[in-house]
Amino acid sequence: VTEMTLFQTIREKLNTALLSDALDSLGVINQVMHESIRPLDPELILVGRAFTMLYVDVYEKPEAPYDKEIEAIDQIQPEDVVVVCTNNSRLTGVWGDLLSTATRARGGQGAVTDGLVRDTRKIMAMRFPVFAAGIKPLDSLGRSVPYSYRCRVRVGDVLVNPGDTIVGDADGLVVLPAEFAADAVRAALEKLNKENSSRKDLLEGRYLRDVYAKYGVL
Amino acid sequence: VTEMTLFQTIREKLNTALLSDALDSLGVINQVMHESIRPLDPELILVGRAFTMLYVDVYEKPEAPYDKEIEAIDQIQPEDVVVVCTNNSRLTGVWGDLLSTATRARGGQGAVTDGLVRDTRKIMAMRFPVFAAGIKPLDSLGRSVPYSYRCRVRVGDVLVNPGDTIVGDADGLVVLPAEFAADAVRAALEKLNKENSSRKDLLEGRYLRDVYAKYGVL
Amino acid sequence: VTEMTLFQTIREKLNTALLSDALDSLGVINQVMHESIRPLDPELILVGRAFTMLYVDVYEKPEAPYDKEIEAIDQIQPEDVVVVCTNNSRLTGVWGDLLSTATRARGGQGAVTDGLVRDTRKIMAMRFPVFAAGIKPLDSLGRSVPYSYRCRVRVGDVLVNPGDTIVGDADGLVVLPAEFAADAVRAALEKLNKENSSRKDLLEGRYLRDVYAKYGVL
Amino acid sequence: VTEMTLFQTIREKLNTALLSDALDSLGVINQVMHESIRPLDPELILVGRAFTMLYVDVYEKPEAPYDKEIEAIDQIQPEDVVVVCTNNSRLTGVWGDLLSTATRARGGQGAVTDGLVRDTRKIMAMRFPVFAAGIKPLDSLGRSVPYSYRCRVRVGDVLVNPGDTIVGDADGLVVLPAEFAADAVRAALEKLNKENSSRKDLLEGRYLRDVYAKYGVL
Amino acid sequence: VTEMTLFQTIREKLNTALLSDALDSLGVINQVMHESIRPLDPELILVGRAFTMLYVDVYEKPEAPYDKEIEAIDQIQPEDVVVVCTNNSRLTGVWGDLLSTATRARGGQGAVTDGLVRDTRKIMAMRFPVFAAGIKPLDSLGRSVPYSYRCRVRVGDVLVNPGDTIVGDADGLVVLPAEFAADAVRAALEKLNKENSSRKDLLEGRYLRDVYAKYGVL
Amino acid sequence: VTEMTLFQTIREKLNTALLSDALDSLGVINQVMHESIRPLDPELILVGRAFTMLYVDVYEKPEAPYDKEIEAIDQIQPEDVVVVCTNNSRLTGVWGDLLSTATRARGGQGAVTDGLVRDTRKIMAMRFPVFAAGIKPLDSLGRSVPYSYRCRVRVGDVLVNPGDTIVGDADGLVVLPAEFAADAVRAALEKLNKENSSRKDLLEGRYLRDVYAKYGVL
Repeated sequence: VTEMTLFQTIREKLNTALLSDALDSLGVINQVMHESIRPLDPELILVGRAFTMLYVDVYEKPEAPYDKEIEAIDQIQPEDVVVVCTNNSRLTGVWGDLLSTATRARGGQGAVTDGLVRDTRKIMAMRFPVFAAGIKPLDSLGRSVPYSYRCRVRVGDVLVNPGDTIVGDADGLVVLPAEFAADAVRAALEKLNKENSSRKDLLEGRYLRDVYAKYGVL
Repeated sequence: VTEMTLFQTIREKLNTALLSDALDSLGVINQVMHESIRPLDPELILVGRAFTMLYVDVYEKPEAPYDKEIEAIDQIQPEDVVVVCTNNSRLTGVWGDLLSTATRARGGQGAVTDGLVRDTRKIMAMRFPVFAAGIKPLDSLGRSVPYSYRCRVRVGDVLVNPGDTIVGDADGLVVLPAEFAADAVRAALEKLNKENSSRKDLLEGRYLRDVYAKYGVL
Repeated sequence: VTEMTLFQTIREKLNTALLSDALDSLGVINQVMHESIRPLDPELILVGRAFTMLYVDVYEKPEAPYDKEIEAIDQIQPEDVVVVCTNNSRLTGVWGDLLSTATRARGGQGAVTDGLVRDTRKIMAMRFPVFAAGIKPLDSLGRSVPYSYRCRVRVGDVLVNPGDTIVGDADGLVVLPAEFAADAVRAALEKLNKENSSRKDLLEGRYLRDVYAKYGVL
Repeated sequence: VTEMTLFQTIREKLNTALLSDALDSLGVINQVMHESIRPLDPELILVGRAFTMLYVDVYEKPEAPYDKEIEAIDQIQPEDVVVVCTNNSRLTGVWGDLLSTATRARGGQGAVTDGLVRDTRKIMAMRFPVFAAGIKPLDSLGRSVPYSYRCRVRVGDVLVNPGDTIVGDADGLVVLPAEFAADAVRAALEKLNKENSSRKDLLEGRYLRDVYAKYGVL
Repeated sequence: VTEMTLFQTIREKLNTALLSDALDSLGVINQVMHESIRPLDPELILVGRAFTMLYVDVYEKPEAPYDKEIEAIDQIQPEDVVVVCTNNSRLTGVWGDLLSTATRARGGQGAVTDGLVRDTRKIMAMRFPVFAAGIKPLDSLGRSVPYSYRCRVRVGDVLVNPGDTIVGDADGLVVLPAEFAADAVRAALEKLNKENSSRKDLLEGRYLRDVYAKYGVL
Repeated sequence: VTEMTLFQTIREKLNTALLSDALDSLGVINQVMHESIRPLDPELILVGRAFTMLYVDVYEKPEAPYDKEIEAIDQIQPEDVVVVCTNNSRLTGVWGDLLSTATRARGGQGAVTDGLVRDTRKIMAMRFPVFAAGIKPLDSLGRSVPYSYRCRVRVGDVLVNPGDTIVGDADGLVVLPAEFAADAVRAALEKLNKENSSRKDLLEGRYLRDVYAKYGVL
C-alpha cells in the first residue's frame, strides 16, 4: 500500500482509538499523545506525515527572528502535518493564522503542538485542523524561535520522527511510526468490524458477558 | 416521595447550583465535585443513582482482564449512574463507547469518572451523558482494571456511596447523599422561586441592594 | 479619541492578537492574561473599562456576607467590565447568573475572573461575556467575600488598574493600560492591514519568504 | 487533664503519627495537614494552641500595612501556635525572623503556614519551630495583609479553629480539635505501647504475621 | 559475576549518575526515576533486588486490611529492595517504621515508593534507606491496600520488574533491568576512571576543551 | 564602589531578604527567584556576576554535543556565577560535578539553574554553591544543549542580564540589576541596622507595636 492509500483509509474508516488499540496489539504502546493536547475543532480529522519543528523560548529578539521559521514552512510538502515541539512552553501562541494559511498553501494538512496557539477563530473558519495545549494571543516574535526542524521531537510525551503518520480526532492524537503504519491500519480495520458487531448486539439488549464472549473486544 | 419522583423533579426543574445551595443550607457542604470533571456535552443533564466502581492502574495484562468489569456492568439497574473512581488516573481512556452502549442497554443514565474517556464522538452521538477529567484514545486493556465495585469511592474530591443521587449539568456535578436527597430537593425548589423573582426584578433595572433586601438570595 | 470611540473601533475591527502585538511594538509586554482564563462562549467579544474586585476565601460565614459585594456591583457604570481577582481560588463559583444580570442592568459589559463561575447555561443564554478559569456550582456564600474593590489587582498574571481597557475574545484576554490604549489601537489597525495583505498573498500560493519580505509581518 | 498536661504529655511521649492514628480510631479522619507543609528544622517538635490568622494577597500598599498584623501578634498568649492561612499563596515570605522573635517574646511556641517564610537561618538559630510550604526572601509589605485573625481557617487542607491543639514534627502536622484532644492523647498512648512491643518482636526476627496477630497494630 | 558481586561493586565504587550514563551508553534510556522521589537520608546508599508491590487507595476499611501486606512483607529475601507503587498517591504514609523494621529483619535493604512515608525519624535512626515522594503521618489503614505484589510496576515513571537492580543515592534512583545489570556495571567502572582523570586535570587548571579532548567525557 | 567591594559587602553583612527589601524600596519589585530553586547546601552563600546560558531539550544526539557548552564554560571569569536557563526543564541533570570543577577552576563562584543537577554529594564536598529546582542523575548528553550564552534569560521567573549581581543563600535568590546594585546594597545596610535594633527590643520583651513605632521596619 502507498502512503496515500493508508492516509485515505484512515480518513474514511478509522479513528485514533482503533489505531491506538491496533498499535497495542503490535506491542507498540507509547504512541498516544498527552490528553492536554486538544483539537481546536473536534469535528475535524487530521491525517498526514509528520514534519517536525523544535522551538526554544528566548528572552531577547534575535536579529532575524523569522528566518528559520520561514525556511521550514516553505519546505512543507503535500500531506505533511506540522508537529511543533515547544517542550511544553506556555509562553506564546507559537502557531497562528498566517502559518496555517502558509502551510495549507503548500499542501500541509494541519498542525500539532505541545504549546499554545492564537487566531483560533480564523483557523477554525479555514477548517484547518490544529491541535494544541491551549490558546493565547501573545506573539512568538522575540519570545520563541525554531532551534531545528526535520529532527526527532517529543510532543505530548510521544517521540515523533519525521515521516511518522500523525492521526488526530476528537479523542486526541496517535503517532504511527513509519515502520508500523501499514500493520496498524490492517489491525485497526479488523477491530473495527468486531466493535461494530459488539455494538449492534449490545443495542439489541444482549449482556456484555455474552457479547464479549462472542467477539472478544471491549 | 419515591426516588423516581425525586429524579423527575430534578430533571425538570432543578440544576446543580440550586442543589448545591440546598445542601449548603442543610449543612452538608462537601458534595460538589472538582471542577476538572466536565461534561462531554454540556447540554445534557444527568440524574440517577450512583453505581460505583473503583479501578487501579496495572502494568501487566491480567489473565482475564475484563472479567470484573463485565460482571459489574451487567449488574447495572435502570436509573443507575456509573461512577468510576480511578484515583485521578490519567493513564487510559477508562470509559468508552461500548461501555456506554452496554450501560444504556441496562437502563443506566450516564457515567462519571475522575479519569479519562474515549470514543467521545460516538458517545455524544448517543446523547449519553458522560462526565470526565479529560479525553484520551488509549485503551484500558492491560492498563487499568476494576479493583472493586458497589463500594464507597472518592471522585472529584467527594465521597460517593452506592445509592447516592448524582446530578450533573453544564456547571458540574453534585452528589446528594441518600439521606439528604429529599430535603435537598425541597430546599432547592424554594430557592428556585426566590432566584426567579430576583432575576426578574434585576432585569427591570432594580439595584441589587433592593432585590437582595426583598428576596434574601444572591 | 474618546474612550467610547476606542471601544467601538476595537469591537468592530480588532482582536486580542492584534492588540497584543500592538502593545509589544510599544514595549508594553506583560498584558496578556494566562491561558487558563477562557471565555464561556468563544463567539462573544468583550471590550470595556476595568472595574476591579478582590476576593478572599474565608472559612466561616461573615455577619453580612453580601454587603460589600452588593455595594460594589451597584456602583458599576456603563461600559465597565468587572474584573474579579480571587488570587486563583478554585474554591467556589464566585460569579454567576444573578451578578451577571445585575451587572448588565447597570450597563456593564461582562466579567473576567481568575476563579470559577456557575450558572453558565443562563449566562450564555444572556449572551453576556464571562471569562473564567473554570466552572463549579458551589456558592461563594460563606466561602469567599470581597476584600476590596476599585483597587489594583492581579488577574491571570497581569496587573489590572481600574480604568484599564479589557479586551477578550476566543484567543483570550489583553489588558490595555489606560495610558497606552489609544496608541495600541492605532498600531493594531496598522498591523491589521499588513496581515490581511499577507494572508491574501499566501492564499494565492506565494511562499512565506516572499510574503514576509513584502509586508514584514508574520 | 489540663491543657498544659496534655501539651506536656504530647511533647514527652507522642508524635504526629500516633496522634493521627488515635484520631482515626475516634473516627476523626481529616486532621493531617498536606505534605507540602514541612518543618524548617525536622528535629524540633511543635505543640500548642492554635492562634489563627488569615491573610490575603494585595497589589497595592495599604495605608497602614502592618497595623492588623501587629495587633494580632501582640495578643499572642503563652502556649499559642500561630497558624497562618494564606490560601496557599506563593507570593511572599509571609513569616520571618522578627515575627518569630515577637511571638516567642509573648510565649508563643511556633508558627505554621500554608505560605512561604524567610529569614530561615535566623529562625533555625533561635530553634523556633516553623512549618511552611516553602522559602522565599520576598517581603510581605504591600503584598499580603491579614484579613482577619482568631477566625476559622483552612491550612494544609485541614480546618483549624482557634483553640485546637497543633502538633508538628518531622512527619508533618496534626490538628486535634479541642473536643477530641484528651481522648486522642489517651488513645495514642495505648497505641504507643503496642507499637513498641511490635517493634521489639520484629527486631528479634519474628514474622510480621505473628507480631500483628499478637498486638494488632501495624 | 554473581548478583552479590555486582551489588558489592556498586556499593563500593559506583553511583546513580555513573550507572545512568552506563545504561545510556547501552541504549537503555528510561531507567532514572522521577526527581520527586527523594531519599530520607541522602547519605545512605541503597542497592538491591526489586521486590515490587502495587497499592490502591480505597475508601472503606477492608475486612482484613493488612493480610496481603503481611503476606508480602514476610516473603522478603536478603538483598531485596521493596518497591512500592501507589500510582503516585498522596493519600497516606504508605510506608513506615514497623514495615522498615520487618523488612530489615528479613534481610531487606531498603524501600522506594512513589507515595508518602511516615515515622521518618525512627527510620533514619535505623539508617534504613527509604526513598519517597514525601512525608505524611496519616496511616494507610483503611485507605490504601496492596492490590498485588511481585508484579511489574511503574514507579517514578520507570517500569520495574521483580528482580531488577535498584540503586539509590543522594542524586536519586536508577533501575538496572536484570539483563543489563552486569554490562551497566562494567561500563560505569570505565566511565568512573575517565571522570576521575578529567576532574584531576580540571583541578590543575586545564581548560575544559583540552580535558574533554583528552578523555572524552563530561 | 567597585564591583568587588559590593560583592564583599554583601558576603560579609547582607542576605537575600535584606537585598530584596532594598530593591522593593527602590521600586524594583520582580527580582526574587521562584521558591522552587533551592540551594544544595543552605549554609553556603553565593554572590557574583551573572554569566548566563540558555539550554534547549533535544531528542537526538547532536554531532558535537558538548562544543558550545565547553566554549562557554572556558570563558568564565573570576566572580562569575553561571546562570543556566533550561526553561524549567525537568529532563536531565543539566549541571554536575565536572562543570562545577571547571567553573571553579576559572574563578567562578557558583551556579544557578531552573533545571536539575546531579553529582550533588561531590558538589557539596567541594563547598561550591549550586542552586537548582531539583536533583536527577540523568546525563544531559544528547538530551539538552546550549542554544546560546551571554544572552538575557529568564530563571525562576526573573529576567537575568549578563552582568547582573546574583545573591543566593538559604532563603533563595535575588537578582540585582547592574544599574541598581550599589543603591540596593546601601539601602540594605540601612535596613540591617533597624532590624537589629528591632530584634534586640523584641528580645527584651517589648511589644511589636512599640518596636515598630520606634524603628519602622518589620
